[in-house]
Amino acid sequence: MTTAPSSALFDRVALIGVGLIGSSLARAIRRHGLARTIAVADQGEGVAARALALGLCDEAGEDAVAAVRGADLVMLCTPVGAGEAIARAIGPALAPGAIVSDVGSVKARVIEMIAPHLPAGVHLVPGHPVAGTEKSGPESGFAELFEGRWCILTPLPTTDARAVDKVAELWRRVGMVIETMDPDTHDKVLAITSHLPHLIAYTIVGTAADLEDHLSQKVIAFSAGGFRDFTRIAGSDPVMWRDVFLNNREAVLEILQRFTEDLTALQRAIRWGEGDTLEALFTKTRAIRQAVIEAKQA
Amino acid sequence: MTTAPSSALFDRVALIGVGLIGSSLARAIRRHGLARTIAVADQGEGVAARALALGLCDEAGEDAVAAVRGADLVMLCTPVGAGEAIARAIGPALAPGAIVSDVGSVKARVIEMIAPHLPAGVHLVPGHPVAGTEKSGPESGFAELFEGRWCILTPLPTTDARAVDKVAELWRRVGMVIETMDPDTHDKVLAITSHLPHLIAYTIVGTAADLEDHLSQKVIAFSAGGFRDFTRIAGSDPVMWRDVFLNNREAVLEILQRFTEDLTALQRAIRWGEGDTLEALFTKTRAIRQAVIEAKQA
Ligand SMILES: NC(=O)c1ccc[n+]([C@@H]2O[C@H](COP(=O)([O-])OP(=O)(O)OC[C@H]3O[C@@H](n4cnc5c(N)ncnc54)[C@H](OP(=O)(O)O)[C@@H]3O)[C@@H](O)[C@H]2O)c1
Ligand SMILES: NC(=O)c1ccc[n+]([C@@H]2O[C@H](COP(=O)([O-])OP(=O)(O)OC[C@H]3O[C@@H](n4cnc5c(N)ncnc54)[C@H](OP(=O)(O)O)[C@@H]3O)[C@@H](O)[C@H]2O)c1
Repeated sequence: MTTAPSSALFDRVALIGVGLIGSSLARAIRRHGLARTIAVADQGEGVAARALALGLCDEAGEDAVAAVRGADLVMLCTPVGAGEAIARAIGPALAPGAIVSDVGSVKARVIEMIAPHLPAGVHLVPGHPVAGTEKSGPESGFAELFEGRWCILTPLPTTDARAVDKVAELWRRVGMVIETMDPDTHDKVLAITSHLPHLIAYTIVGTAADLEDHLSQKVIAFSAGGFRDFTRIAGSDPVMWRDVFLNNREAVLEILQRFTEDLTALQRAIRWGEGDTLEALFTKTRAIRQAVIEAKQA
Repeated sequence: MTTAPSSALFDRVALIGVGLIGSSLARAIRRHGLARTIAVADQGEGVAARALALGLCDEAGEDAVAAVRGADLVMLCTPVGAGEAIARAIGPALAPGAIVSDVGSVKARVIEMIAPHLPAGVHLVPGHPVAGTEKSGPESGFAELFEGRWCILTPLPTTDARAVDKVAELWRRVGMVIETMDPDTHDKVLAITSHLPHLIAYTIVGTAADLEDHLSQKVIAFSAGGFRDFTRIAGSDPVMWRDVFLNNREAVLEILQRFTEDLTALQRAIRWGEGDTLEALFTKTRAIRQAVIEAKQA
């Protein structure tokens, strides 16, 4: 049992999945004394044992059902594709009044997958802490990950307001700034700020890997400027990202279509030597950079 | 006159263009005492005066011809498209035995533009310090920019070996590691490690700028993960990058073609829900990230 101050927000928090995000949240909950007990379930080989050895939680195992028993907060921190099976399994074991929340990078599909499996009287508060790194696993987490970053909540119109407030308070206490929006808007915004950039980084690094051998070697050796950033992004967890693209298909394909059209126009400008077109676009994008800096996101 | 130690490599260095790279080089030459005199020419409004006020050089003005008179090293630090006109102008004023070098991000075209205008007895040593930031102007330079980074030299087979050695020694003394390759290989490698990533970052930020207003606002506010890196890259100097694309057209179009094919394949995999294809690519790219880290470029 954690000796949490009496101000603990939750009695028992069950974290399903204790990779980068789950383990960071466990650390932050500990540090800020937000739960009396932290129970963890993870299917990864040896992951639960490592989480326990790292002192991240009070209980750990592979069985999500055991973890959620008696929990007043269940937080899914698994790749989004796993949500449906987990919800189906834990549904019957959830305590009345329990809150189920998640940290998934996609929201509309996740709600579709989880909501039908929750019994009446259990509150679903879908969320997305917009903070992360390209690392994965329980060793790569840290309590400060969330500080000063946004947490987007996408509650349904019917969701109990007190449940939403409690989840918001959890994220606030670990340092996040809360924003609420509808799931579709979330998915469109993230498709461009996060999903498309990852898709492109994966693609370009893949293109480099397929080059003739002598070029590929040199690309790695001289991986300057832009490419270095891209390899970092493209080092992100394959399963997590597979699930993001499979579950935010529509929004990603739509923004990809626009991107491709814009890229084709630039390709044409390069082919025909249209310097003015290039310079005009390159000037316009500077303004966006400035806006991002002013929004304190840089 | 700078009081340089007697070990000064050069008597008079003329830097044409004193933006990010030119001013960083001026600072590094000063710090390491590599020239007795640094003369600077820049056409930018007030730039020469600012360079002088910053203490970067001994002489500064707008006139490249005046700067190169009596110089034993002339270094072009202007956008690559300016090379031809500058070479034509300064050619007749160059001292016999002088070395002309450059820092341009493109090599084959730059050689084509400059070489024909240099008198016999003047040595052309094309180069590219692979180090930079997204900033520009003399205020944004710093002497440490080059430390631990690669400098690629692309001398012609006929270039005087002692001239190449002297330029290599300059970059070595400011902290760079020297690599020699032919101009075409340089241009292909940089097309993928630097030019394509910049093109894509510019495109994606441009696509975001064209979104419906309410989405565009949110994209800026929640510009997490990948997009933030892209806006930084897309904040780079428009003229410099216009010139890169106009002057490395072939290599950029070729790699862009491959990239587009690969992206189309991924798009299809997303559309048809082919998770295995996605996961396989996302796993392959991790290996490249590892190689980049091992090559100490990360
Ligand atoms: N990484 C980021 O930057 C970031 C940012 C914000 C939100 N998110 C979201 O956070 C979630 C987790 O991402 P992460 O980066 O923490 O991933 P991670 O480090 O790979 O951790 C995920 C963990 O969940 C386990 N797991 C998978 N399926 C499971 C199941 N059915 N039951 C129990 N455990 C299961 C995994 O084990 P195995 O590896 O053995 O499957 C792994 O240990 C994802 O939904 C992602 O979209 C990520
Ligand atoms: N930035 C990088 O990351 C990087 C890295 C490696 C190599 N390079 C190469 O370095 C070179 C300079 O880039 P930079 O980043 O230093 O650019 P920068 O900060 O924009 O500086 C370029 C300077 O050259 C001046 N200039 C332009 N045309 C000129 C002319 N005909 N005569 C005299 N001065 C002229 C510009 O003035 P105006 O602005 O008024 O035109 C400006 O002050 C480029 O060839 C680039 O490819 C850049």
